[in-house]
Amino acid sequence: MNDKLRRDGRRIVDRAIGAVLPDEAVRRALEGREFSGRVVLVAAGKAAWQMARTAAECVRVSGGVVVTKYGHGKGDIPGLVCYEAGHPVPDENSFRATEAAIDAVTGLTAEDTVLFLLSGGGSALFERPLLPPEELQDITGQLLASGADIVEMNTIRKRLSAVKGGRFAQLCRPAHVVSIVLSDILGDPLDMIASGPACADRSTCAEAKAVAEKYGLRLSPLARELLARETPKQADNVESVITGSVRELCAAAAEECRALGYEPLMLTDRLCCQAREAGSFLASMVRTHAGQGRRLAFLAGGETVVRLTGSGKGGRTQELALAAAEGIEGLDALVLSVGSDGTDGPTDAAGGMVDGDTAGELRRQGLRIYDVLQDNDAYHALEKAEGLIITGPTGTNVNDVAVALVNG
Amino acid sequence: MNDKLRRDGRRIVDRAIGAVLPDEAVRRALEGREFSGRVVLVAAGKAAWQMARTAAECVRVSGGVVVTKYGHGKGDIPGLVCYEAGHPVPDENSFRATEAAIDAVTGLTAEDTVLFLLSGGGSALFERPLLPPEELQDITGQLLASGADIVEMNTIRKRLSAVKGGRFAQLCRPAHVVSIVLSDILGDPLDMIASGPACADRSTCAEAKAVAEKYGLRLSPLARELLARETPKQADNVESVITGSVRELCAAAAEECRALGYEPLMLTDRLCCQAREAGSFLASMVRTHAGQGRRLAFLAGGETVVRLTGSGKGGRTQELALAAAEGIEGLDALVLSVGSDGTDGPTDAAGGMVDGDTAGELRRQGLRIYDVLQDNDAYHALEKAEGLIITGPTGTNVNDVAVALVNG
Repeated sequence: MNDKLRRDGRRIVDRAIGAVLPDEAVRRALEGREFSGRVVLVAAGKAAWQMARTAAECVRVSGGVVVTKYGHGKGDIPGLVCYEAGHPVPDENSFRATEAAIDAVTGLTAEDTVLFLLSGGGSALFERPLLPPEELQDITGQLLASGADIVEMNTIRKRLSAVKGGRFAQLCRPAHVVSIVLSDILGDPLDMIASGPACADRSTCAEAKAVAEKYGLRLSPLARELLARETPKQADNVESVITGSVRELCAAAAEECRALGYEPLMLTDRLCCQAREAGSFLASMVRTHAGQGRRLAFLAGGETVVRLTGSGKGGRTQELALAAAEGIEGLDALVLSVGSDGTDGPTDAAGGMVDGDTAGELRRQGLRIYDVLQDNDAYHALEKAEGLIITGPTGTNVNDVAVALVNG
Repeated sequence: MNDKLRRDGRRIVDRAIGAVLPDEAVRRALEGREFSGRVVLVAAGKAAWQMARTAAECVRVSGGVVVTKYGHGKGDIPGLVCYEAGHPVPDENSFRATEAAIDAVTGLTAEDTVLFLLSGGGSALFERPLLPPEELQDITGQLLASGADIVEMNTIRKRLSAVKGGRFAQLCRPAHVVSIVLSDILGDPLDMIASGPACADRSTCAEAKAVAEKYGLRLSPLARELLARETPKQADNVESVITGSVRELCAAAAEECRALGYEPLMLTDRLCCQAREAGSFLASMVRTHAGQGRRLAFLAGGETVVRLTGSGKGGRTQELALAAAEGIEGLDALVLSVGSDGTDGPTDAAGGMVDGDTAGELRRQGLRIYDVLQDNDAYHALEKAEGLIITGPTGTNVNDVAVALVNG
């Protein structure tokens, strides 16, 4: 086992994930920003507590509300009222917290700012229904059962809510809204993340009516009236900043590679091919460049896919790493791959790393890598080769990064 | 269609293949060499004809046999008997030519020399099966369809043959064998090229058995017995010279890229993953680097494999190129892939190229790239998008090169 390379690998992982944690992402987004009037903070989502705490350290806030999922709060934050609420199904606490947020942004002036911190899960946690909650749940249930897609679903739900589809930003007027969004959806579609409370809505009443007809939704007269009420098509009091992305994940990994004396080569931040084939491709690059006297780091970010051929335990990043083991056998090299959320597939590992000894070690233990991959069982093989990367849940989610180190 | 980029692509292909043609390589290998007794020439492979013609110009041969693929011979060579035969599946002509070669080297003395010129494709063309030909063809077919790599394939085929795995060199005894090899396998493993007729075999009966089990090969009792019969582990009457390689192919492509104003980045000369996934990986690199103002050329040499999921017409380099089309759609970029032998799979194309317009063009013609790839029908799609690279048989075979051009 190549201890030196593995220590390098672990430092690269920690630096990369550290750079896209909610705290760091919010800090970067607020850097150098000045506020003239009052600043009211509203944070919603699974990362709301971390985002709010960091924001409260960087900015002098006059008050506000934080709502996150049960178990995701870590105590009081001076000056803010913290709630925990239901996810994925909104509950009384979601409504109560959202009501408090609406109160907090009511009566502000054009000099004031609402600092709106949004992360994944916000759709359930930040909600004030315009219908009795039971009726909202009934309609959601009808949509789920009908096979409606997420776009159709949101076209309906935005109209049944006082805050979604740009309506929260409208409630903040005349105050300015600075919306800092930790994106958990590929391509960062602002109107989809948490159903876009501070984003002009692109869906129309005509589309909502068409969806209701298409699936034969049973609706009360009030619900019908709400579907006919248009959502804001402008949100000119809002400035949105998307922070935390696979690009930042890769950039931080590359910086750490450079600090450790490797020459980083950023291949892509759009990787989307099969996990094992990506591992094989990276290994072939390592084989070509090893032993030439250059210390190199090849980086590839994105999200690969697993081809299911077995029933073992693993995930895409673990498969990618394991698939590189034979290609780099005997070389002074390492290949690692890690998911930024810390949980790769249905496992407690964030990813995997292999070095020039891994293939031989597995062979000694009677394992054939080909068979392991066919069984999608990378977790157990990496466990045996001390190749699991364990970070625990990180509180962020901006895809994966793979790094291939060539040590001269 | 991006004419400028396509012209660049074609120039890169021509320069790369031109640099690895066999004539000059054979001339270099024979330079200054003296032969005392008789010289019998045996040439097998897709480049056999050119290699033999050049050798016959440099050395006074007393006779011999040349066997190449159908369409690869270019006429008579004085003093030699030329055959054309089946590839990738050996046929009656393969067996007849090999029989003639065995006759030609039988009865030589220790003063005599067998000048053995080997190139890619030799495995099918130079063959004397120890099984009924239909059974050998069936096993070869099973191996091709299973996705077995060339190393696995040869481990089996050597044991079913009277000439492979060092057995031809044994038949030449007591004559000396000078073996000039144009390498078509990554890393130039002499015992694998054309299944190593003049090279001590490193593969073992145990490995052959493992391959048969891995792919569930259907084998007769005789075939099973042959797999258990060991190959020669010594070949001390042989001197081997390796010429031509995928590295030279890539280096020449990179030189032409530089001459055309692209900054070449040599990724690997050991590529061996699935063709479509390699195409997707290269496209993701192009997407990341396009529009940054740098003119880049990513190069990857090696030999990918096709996963058979349909029954269309195509080959590995055509699949690689086509699989990149969607990923580079709309960009000022091009991805090409070409086999140095000029015949990719069972087609008359050497490879394929796609640019930022290809995906849209195919859509307009009603083709879905995903479906085309599932049907392994890249040839017809590339034909419709004017993306086939046609060179005709080149007479050389040193694997493939893929090039991704980013035009700023």
